[in-house]
Amino acid sequence: MFKRFIFFILSFQALYALSQTNDTVTMQRISNEVMLNGKAYDNLRYLCKQIGPRLSGSANAQKAVEATADMLRQAGADTVYLQSCMVPHWVRGAKEQATVRYSGGRKQLNVCALGGSVGTDGKTVMADIVEVQSFYELEKMKPEDVKGKIVFFNYAMRPELISGGYGDAVRYRTGSPVAAAKMGAVASIIRSVTHAMDNNPHTGTTRYNDTFPKIPALACSTNDAVWLSNLMKEQKGVRLSIKMNCQTLPDVESFNVIGEIRGTENPEEIISAGGHLDSWDLAEGAHDDGTGCMQAIEMIRTMKALSLKPKRTIRAVMFMNEENGTRGANKYAELATQKNEKHLFAIESDEGGFGCVGIGINGTPAQEEKVKTWLPLFRSYGVLTISHGGGGTDIRPLAPLGTMMASVDPDSQRYFDVHHAPNDVFENVNKRELNLGAIGMTGIVWLVSEHGL
Amino acid sequence: MFKRFIFFILSFQALYALSQTNDTVTMQRISNEVMLNGKAYDNLRYLCKQIGPRLSGSANAQKAVEATADMLRQAGADTVYLQSCMVPHWVRGAKEQATVRYSGGRKQLNVCALGGSVGTDGKTVMADIVEVQSFYELEKMKPEDVKGKIVFFNYAMRPELISGGYGDAVRYRTGSPVAAAKMGAVASIIRSVTHAMDNNPHTGTTRYNDTFPKIPALACSTNDAVWLSNLMKEQKGVRLSIKMNCQTLPDVESFNVIGEIRGTENPEEIISAGGHLDSWDLAEGAHDDGTGCMQAIEMIRTMKALSLKPKRTIRAVMFMNEENGTRGANKYAELATQKNEKHLFAIESDEGGFGCVGIGINGTPAQEEKVKTWLPLFRSYGVLTISHGGGGTDIRPLAPLGTMMASVDPDSQRYFDVHHAPNDVFENVNKRELNLGAIGMTGIVWLVSEHGL
Repeated sequence: MFKRFIFFILSFQALYALSQTNDTVTMQRISNEVMLNGKAYDNLRYLCKQIGPRLSGSANAQKAVEATADMLRQAGADTVYLQSCMVPHWVRGAKEQATVRYSGGRKQLNVCALGGSVGTDGKTVMADIVEVQSFYELEKMKPEDVKGKIVFFNYAMRPELISGGYGDAVRYRTGSPVAAAKMGAVASIIRSVTHAMDNNPHTGTTRYNDTFPKIPALACSTNDAVWLSNLMKEQKGVRLSIKMNCQTLPDVESFNVIGEIRGTENPEEIISAGGHLDSWDLAEGAHDDGTGCMQAIEMIRTMKALSLKPKRTIRAVMFMNEENGTRGANKYAELATQKNEKHLFAIESDEGGFGCVGIGINGTPAQEEKVKTWLPLFRSYGVLTISHGGGGTDIRPLAPLGTMMASVDPDSQRYFDVHHAPNDVFENVNKRELNLGAIGMTGIVWLVSEHGL
Repeated sequence: MFKRFIFFILSFQALYALSQTNDTVTMQRISNEVMLNGKAYDNLRYLCKQIGPRLSGSANAQKAVEATADMLRQAGADTVYLQSCMVPHWVRGAKEQATVRYSGGRKQLNVCALGGSVGTDGKTVMADIVEVQSFYELEKMKPEDVKGKIVFFNYAMRPELISGGYGDAVRYRTGSPVAAAKMGAVASIIRSVTHAMDNNPHTGTTRYNDTFPKIPALACSTNDAVWLSNLMKEQKGVRLSIKMNCQTLPDVESFNVIGEIRGTENPEEIISAGGHLDSWDLAEGAHDDGTGCMQAIEMIRTMKALSLKPKRTIRAVMFMNEENGTRGANKYAELATQKNEKHLFAIESDEGGFGCVGIGINGTPAQEEKVKTWLPLFRSYGVLTISHGGGGTDIRPLAPLGTMMASVDPDSQRYFDVHHAPNDVFENVNKRELNLGAIGMTGIVWLVSEHGL
């Protein structure tokens, strides 16, 4: 009996060692395949240069749906299919204009309408500017000092916040028109949410509510914000004239794009990996989030190229409409719930296609402990941590299904330099960094597929 | 007695907790100071744009010595001094030319002489090209097939090596002229040591020995290497004409630049942190290694701005001549040995000014264990690991003194895109990433100074 027990222990250890060795070998094969034969970079070039900006509801978004479905077929997915969803259709129209009129001249600002903003109905809105540094400062003002004016929220993204600066500053992008309208302002303009000091205006969703009037909302570049603020220290009565041609059209049909490899042993257990296919209309959406989508397609291509047969079903998902509605993500979770699908694990890459230095995870303590034991398998590929805190906007609706969440975590200090701005272009993506994200994503998906959770 | 023992234990724990708390607070203060008031980025702009390339022995290198000494004084160092050393003085002369002559035309290649190469004595060297993919392939050739020709080493940096690709490929930069001359070639040209596919030639030191003739040695851009290799698949008798005007002049005096804060309790124990001040002549030397130098100056500035009083002596060291001689580093260690100085710890930042995701360390097992316990203090500032494997060219000569070595480890996948090439310019450095390296460096130096090793 004792001997048998010892034999059992030894066999178990041998199997465990073998499994570790297999995983090590597979990770090396995945890495080599991506680094030597990867298509993510070429695919991204196509998405950015042949299609370009692809805001939800646009003709380009539809082209991107078709192109990525093709890429998934090329990658060898067992099945490729679309999930229909209705998406908002906001259009910028002719480029917006914002001109500062001051004693001594006029200056055209580098501006863009915030996503979802109303336009100016073909008119020009002209009014005095009131500058505030914060919501708090605005709240303290007398309504008569704001009424009929344009509020300039000059809140700089805080440099001392190593992470979290975006979450802090983006409140001004989302909240500026309501806060200004509440005080009777006729429009609002924010300093772009970026650390970069340059001439690029950064767009992104803003919000209205039904209590206060919907007023036009813009962002100006950081350089212009500094210029304007300095000007307003020197003189009074600085005015801004705004013309914006944006409008919200009726919702249109669009699609999530899904490529699947069916699991060999537990096909009913689903692992999703992806990013969002839509981008803002001013940018190629290279880092946001072309890279996440291309990494997910590369995951499928790599597994097929290596003839890896996952035990569980693996999906690459290009979610539609993350930027201004999350309709694709909601539809994905809704269908999963309707079909009673078992979604084991979902990973999102939507923090820029920079080198993947970590994998964030969010599951039960036991799941997290298990996944953390895989870290040694990743270190050679630049992944330095597997730590609590994964997730993302597009996979969040899966949470009620008990899905473990994860994210590809890059070193994204550069991200907000390009985020939602015209310089989010293919040229600012580094091929190796993009590929390393694909390796991290493919590796963790493979391991979950092999070992379960 | 028992009560006293308990009291002792509790006091010890309280002190330990207090010390941890103090360290946490100090790290936060350091980070805030660097991110809010940091001068590293402005200093780097000055070094790159007002001085520019600063190859050892050049007038610019001397300007950089004076400018960084000034920066250290501005930063508030207790003492700023120079260490004299003799450095090699290689000059490129008028820009080199390399023209491919083939059936159908001529094409000027994007080339640069490798550092230390001989020139062509005012003449043009013209010869048939022999392409090889490796030293091994060259060794197998018949000498008569190489004699009198120009060897083209078309060895591509291996994309599948996540790290280590440079170490692998740089053998061709250092070894090409000797290997080619051994077979009777009249010149050698390598494919630039970079993953980037572009038109930038990358320079860097090459080597001769006394056994074989010193032949001219160049690098061409990766795009040109691909073009040339394709051309040579199509036709025979492709020739290259080379004119190079480089020469090695007599050694000249130059300097390490040192700024010091004297320790309050153990001033005899020295902690050095730095990078190298010289750069190649084709580039601004922004990432290589302006960033390392500016981080070390920022460390001094930050400690002084916060009135931190280190227990041990801290030095920011700008080493001269890392690129083609390491004379400054050798001099630094030589003087340390002569003066019987106790060099406790040295850290180098010379892998590009990208975000500092790790700190590499190299000490005794006990030292490494101790330093690793500090990792929680760094995580909020982007440092994800403290792991074995630190060091660098400029601090290596201190090893015989028993100094613990360390390095600021960035995610440096982009580094070799710009390394030793004309695009290593200020614009390619991200302010926040640069600052995060300064925080990592300052933090680890402060902790060593506080707690010893």
